[in-house]
Amino acid sequence: MSSDKITIHDIARILNVDSSTVSRALNNSPRVTEKTKNRIIAKAQELGYQRNDLASNLRKNKTNTLGVIVPRISRHFFSSAIAGIEETAYNLGYNVIICQSLEQLEREQNTVNTLLANRVEGVLVSISMETKNYEHFEGLRKRKIPFVFFDRHLNVPETSSVLIDDFQAGFDATEHLIIKGCKKIAHFSGPMDLEIYKNRFAGYKAALLKHHIKFNDELIFNSRLMEQDGIENADKIIGLPYKVDGIFSANDVAAISALQQLKRNDFKIPEDIAIVGFSNEAISAVIEPSLTTINQPGFNIGKRAAELLISQISGNNGSVIDEKIIIQANLVERDSSQKNQGNK
Amino acid sequence: MSSDKITIHDIARILNVDSSTVSRALNNSPRVTEKTKNRIIAKAQELGYQRNDLASNLRKNKTNTLGVIVPRISRHFFSSAIAGIEETAYNLGYNVIICQSLEQLEREQNTVNTLLANRVEGVLVSISMETKNYEHFEGLRKRKIPFVFFDRHLNVPETSSVLIDDFQAGFDATEHLIIKGCKKIAHFSGPMDLEIYKNRFAGYKAALLKHHIKFNDELIFNSRLMEQDGIENADKIIGLPYKVDGIFSANDVAAISALQQLKRNDFKIPEDIAIVGFSNEAISAVIEPSLTTINQPGFNIGKRAAELLISQISGNNGSVIDEKIIIQANLVERDSSQKNQGNK
Repeated sequence: MSSDKITIHDIARILNVDSSTVSRALNNSPRVTEKTKNRIIAKAQELGYQRNDLASNLRKNKTNTLGVIVPRISRHFFSSAIAGIEETAYNLGYNVIICQSLEQLEREQNTVNTLLANRVEGVLVSISMETKNYEHFEGLRKRKIPFVFFDRHLNVPETSSVLIDDFQAGFDATEHLIIKGCKKIAHFSGPMDLEIYKNRFAGYKAALLKHHIKFNDELIFNSRLMEQDGIENADKIIGLPYKVDGIFSANDVAAISALQQLKRNDFKIPEDIAIVGFSNEAISAVIEPSLTTINQPGFNIGKRAAELLISQISGNNGSVIDEKIIIQANLVERDSSQKNQGNK
Repeated sequence: MSSDKITIHDIARILNVDSSTVSRALNNSPRVTEKTKNRIIAKAQELGYQRNDLASNLRKNKTNTLGVIVPRISRHFFSSAIAGIEETAYNLGYNVIICQSLEQLEREQNTVNTLLANRVEGVLVSISMETKNYEHFEGLRKRKIPFVFFDRHLNVPETSSVLIDDFQAGFDATEHLIIKGCKKIAHFSGPMDLEIYKNRFAGYKAALLKHHIKFNDELIFNSRLMEQDGIENADKIIGLPYKVDGIFSANDVAAISALQQLKRNDFKIPEDIAIVGFSNEAISAVIEPSLTTINQPGFNIGKRAAELLISQISGNNGSVIDEKIIIQANLVERDSSQKNQGNK
């Protein structure tokens, strides 16, 4: 028997039950006993039956699948967020498929199309560093497939998002350095097209302002915040004609590579330069000195984003839902910022 | 105009070009200039046109999508392997969607069905720790969808896989400890249903045998190799009535948590107990002392697995291909095993 032709009626006949019972069992209805369910599912698998096959999807327009697009699965924040998404989705009967953009706009566009082709019922997106506009998400909107941004987002109307309070986190990180006695604080920023980097930068500036420290454009280093960027930023800081005594980096990756480069050049951390990162990568707790950083509650962000998306799918009537959930991040104080406060 | 009804003919009419030109442009044919291609793609996106829509997939049976199933995306080895898979797939015109089993058989079964429902053209799998048999992959075989195991596999005939030489790696890790002077070497193993753990264990035993060290069943600790398992194993070692002087752990996660637990109990690493891990997590290079471990060439394994899979898709005639590629891993010597060799 070819599996392409297996229907619920075949399974029903073989097991001597009603087709409707098979259908209910495969849809996990509470009206079928666990025992019967297991027997039907086992037989369906044995025969290679595919419940969610294309014909069925076309008819029902249901795949019970959510798509997730993130820049990189290997970053702690994104894998935590995905864990939160998966737990919520799984409990509510959805499967999750994940795509990486690898920070490239072209790949992000491709993944949107792949997810559309795969008929996902909703999409959770954290955009790439190259993404400057919204066009490639228009296909989702036109198809009435709900999507929710989390963390990295575009500030466009009529979209839903789950964000952390990046302004407050940037403010807290910078004020922490100021309280520790820093007076010349450099900032490593990401692409300013992304709201998260704009807001972290704005928080940095607000903290300087509050503490009457003059903003100095020379101390702002824009990059994609990769390992190499941190090294180059550190070299530039070393080359400055005056002494920088603090760094607030918009991610941990660049903070750590800068820290290592400064150490290689005989700077003492935190005595000469105190450093605060952002995102609390696993490695940040174990490097020497350990890195003070902003902890983003990734699991919780993923969870809330999935809940928001699934509620939109369930109530999907084509209308656009414009909802923002803002979650607070918190400063994790470690050794890289414990400067002697007597200098203040 | 509803996007559900947009065809290449609509795009052709609006842009005043032939439908065949639109089709070629959307299939990225070299016969269309870049300029025209860009114009057509922009218009198609604007209109919400979906090239890979279901009707088209049904007709062509082509989604250009590969599915990947891994236990956890957050582990260094798996994210490296996925990077290798993505690079290869992308260069050969395939998109990649990723699913996690989270080490649970039930989720792994679900992901196989999700990928089938999404009509992927091939699947790359590294199985969960709960997976003891092959049944849930039979649906793929029945549908003539090629699949390739990488790293964690089942030893079943007529399947293709890309593996590391776990026996040799286990042998090398253990012999390294012996050469450093260890005589009572514990082994942290994973579930013995998985070939990789069986083979690492066999390598451990073979190294003992070569060096005339008596095998002691009491020194074998079976678990799922999570953080908590490493802590519990360390406590058991501390409680033994004789002195253990070396540990070979089948992963870094358990090796690191054991190392930290031993340190908390005033053991000196490596002087009292030398430790070798497996898989070279990022954190292993930066903990104190840094962890000697086996480096698995994840990127290369992913690359080879994707190449093997795509060659099977391209030549797919329904016949089963039974191919095994074995890649060597290498020992990375760090501080956790640099015992004083004078003791030997």
